[in-house]
Amino acid sequence: MAYVGKEREVQPVIYDGDEVKGVEKRVLIGPKHGAGNYVMRLFTLQEGGYTPKHSHPWEHEVYVVEGELELEASGEIHRLSQGSFAFVKANEEHQFRNAGSGSAKFICVIPTSGGE
Amino acid sequence: MAYVGKEREVQPVIYDGDEVKGVEKRVLIGPKHGAGNYVMRLFTLQEGGYTPKHSHPWEHEVYVVEGELELEASGEIHRLSQGSFAFVKANEEHQFRNAGSGSAKFICVIPTSGGE
Repeated sequence: MAYVGKEREVQPVIYDGDEVKGVEKRVLIGPKHGAGNYVMRLFTLQEGGYTPKHSHPWEHEVYVVEGELELEASGEIHRLSQGSFAFVKANEEHQFRNAGSGSAKFICVIPTSGGE
Repeated sequence: MAYVGKEREVQPVIYDGDEVKGVEKRVLIGPKHGAGNYVMRLFTLQEGGYTPKHSHPWEHEVYVVEGELELEASGEIHRLSQGSFAFVKANEEHQFRNAGSGSAKFICVIPTSGGE
């Protein structure tokens, strides 16, 4: 049977600290729901928010749902907005930053080897 | 280096026939771009459009970007709209139908074993 839901029904994990600011992560579909290969997460970045600048041995497949973002990856800056997509390769250093007024939202899919 | 683009720059594959109607598929991120594990596609269904009612041995992870949809999966009907997500399991019979006025758009991620 299919597993179906709404993003607003999913409890967020909040990230706020020195290296990450104003970030909510919602795991929409993952191992708990029977997904064994890849995990679909929704990130919301508050105005001024950013994800950590880091790298890891798994890739990201990203689609922007709302707002304006900057993606810094391997030292290059890319501007993203609704309808933009980005493939961040394994081991690339990267950071997403909200570059607009208001919040920004994007889907980010990772392999289950990357956790949730 | 990250691969970045805009959905409108991606050439669609059009599906129109007896079993599928008014469907555009855009492969945003896939094996051609170096993605070896899973493929991110964007589907646009015109008003009245639908995907084939079929099953296959790979799963779908879906997020609705725009519009109103019906997902029929294993004989149950689910109503989807912006912010809905759906996990259609391997071998489940399923069909997406545009249930609104205007077009509907959703992200659909499959493993590379399912092609593009």
